Amino acid sequence: MADLWQDAMDHAVTAARGAGRQVVREALREDRKVMTKSSSVDLVTQTDQKVEQLIIQSVKEKYPTHRFIGEESVAAGEPCVLSDEPTWIIDPIDGTTNFVHGFPFVAVSVGFSVNRQIEFGVVYSCLEDKMFTARRGRGSFCNGQPLQVSAQTDVGQSVIATEFGSNRDPEVVDGIFSSLRNVLAIPVHGVRSAGTAAINMCLVASGCVEAYYEMGMHVWDLAAASLLVTEAGGVLMDVEGGPFDLMSRRVIAANNRSIGQRIAREIRAYAPVRDDAPAHTQ
Amino acid sequence: MADLWQDAMDHAVTAARGAGRQVVREALREDRKVMTKSSSVDLVTQTDQKVEQLIIQSVKEKYPTHRFIGEESVAAGEPCVLSDEPTWIIDPIDGTTNFVHGFPFVAVSVGFSVNRQIEFGVVYSCLEDKMFTARRGRGSFCNGQPLQVSAQTDVGQSVIATEFGSNRDPEVVDGIFSSLRNVLAIPVHGVRSAGTAAINMCLVASGCVEAYYEMGMHVWDLAAASLLVTEAGGVLMDVEGGPFDLMSRRVIAANNRSIGQRIAREIRAYAPVRDDAPAHTQ
Repeated sequence: MADLWQDAMDHAVTAARGAGRQVVREALREDRKVMTKSSSVDLVTQTDQKVEQLIIQSVKEKYPTHRFIGEESVAAGEPCVLSDEPTWIIDPIDGTTNFVHGFPFVAVSVGFSVNRQIEFGVVYSCLEDKMFTARRGRGSFCNGQPLQVSAQTDVGQSVIATEFGSNRDPEVVDGIFSSLRNVLAIPVHGVRSAGTAAINMCLVASGCVEAYYEMGMHVWDLAAASLLVTEAGGVLMDVEGGPFDLMSRRVIAANNRSIGQRIAREIRAYAPVRDDAPAHTQ
Repeated sequence: MADLWQDAMDHAVTAARGAGRQVVREALREDRKVMTKSSSVDLVTQTDQKVEQLIIQSVKEKYPTHRFIGEESVAAGEPCVLSDEPTWIIDPIDGTTNFVHGFPFVAVSVGFSVNRQIEFGVVYSCLEDKMFTARRGRGSFCNGQPLQVSAQTDVGQSVIATEFGSNRDPEVVDGIFSSLRNVLAIPVHGVRSAGTAAINMCLVASGCVEAYYEMGMHVWDLAAASLLVTEAGGVLMDVEGGPFDLMSRRVIAANNRSIGQRIAREIRAYAPVRDDAPAHTQ
């Protein structure tokens, strides 16, 4: 049972590294032809689509019955449904804005779920050349070295990662600023914004930040990295402190429950349209 | 004239890289014994002091008449005076909080001024192993590759770097949040926080972010990286849009004057106690 998905995980590592090195890093050496999607903040590039197609094609050849949830496929109208079937959940470039600007955190993220449970997660940080991997029950690793969340128990000594997101709706921005201000006033040690959900969560798994919280990102940003966090000894929860829901577009990833809950108390939560809401599935 | 300080610059590169690799990176492999300074956010470690002493000693042997402004020396009561004399301006670890947490942006910063003008700047990003160098009139480089600021002229397509700093005075925090909110509402493409002034400015020099602004950091955070920005084609200005003043603890570093001025319009400025204020010089 434990080895059932090892081949698939090996395939994910190879595909993510290949796409990251040959497509993402290559593209950063060329001119970047940028198309705007819903707003100036949410860019999609040809590279994004190319990476997703490359990974999906290679998986389809090997696992023709498997399903997919991919950022670009969903943008193109594919359904965003998490079933019990083996499903590859792909963010071809997490940190598209970083990619467009050459900011050093850009990740290819590949998660894999069976029975709605993440079996493995692979996050390749292309510019840092760091391969983050987690297999359920077998720990988290970066370039083969085991990861462990921070042992910090004092929230006052903690560094928190979060993002301003791409939603500029005044009410949402109000909430983001209100939450951030409350968190800063705990007080925490510092706040960082890397610009990608997957890498923020890998920073939690690596022990570099104690917690990361955000609302509004998507299942493909979270799937792979969520397992990185738990397999490194961390916890996931909803921004209101309840159980984490992969399709809810809300997360706190923390080194321990106490710090996670402390952050949850400071967040002014809102409910983004779920990734599996009917509009997306029709 | 142009070669007058090349030897000193070579020395700075060797000293910064040596300290970064042998002291900073080594220390991150061991337990980090942390002392608190003025607040829980502003940490100083034994490593910080060790790096500064190592660099100052090596420079003193070679240039016995040169002067120094170093973060740890000033904290220990040394004067913070920028005179016409050749002066080495040293931040042994820019990003102390990052260092304490193992967050990947940690820099050794060495600037050198003569007649109150920066002649060269060296910023070594220890964990990324990136050596940023600039010599006045001769350009900026990262690991020997020339740097160029972003060509972006549309502030709406820009990524802005800034920090929340270590001051938790409600009035200062009010200003920081008000400014950030205004900047976000321009709207800009995104906001990032790397956790070090020197690396934020190197990101401007590298074209990864269009502008960086902050108030409250110190001359040793800014000296070296300020030349990186201008030699890569960027501009420096005060947060109210006037001329940049190295001792004022305020800066906007931008890829061009227009974007810098646009950011300046959104900042609620305050005046930190100057680095060369009498309290520091007596």
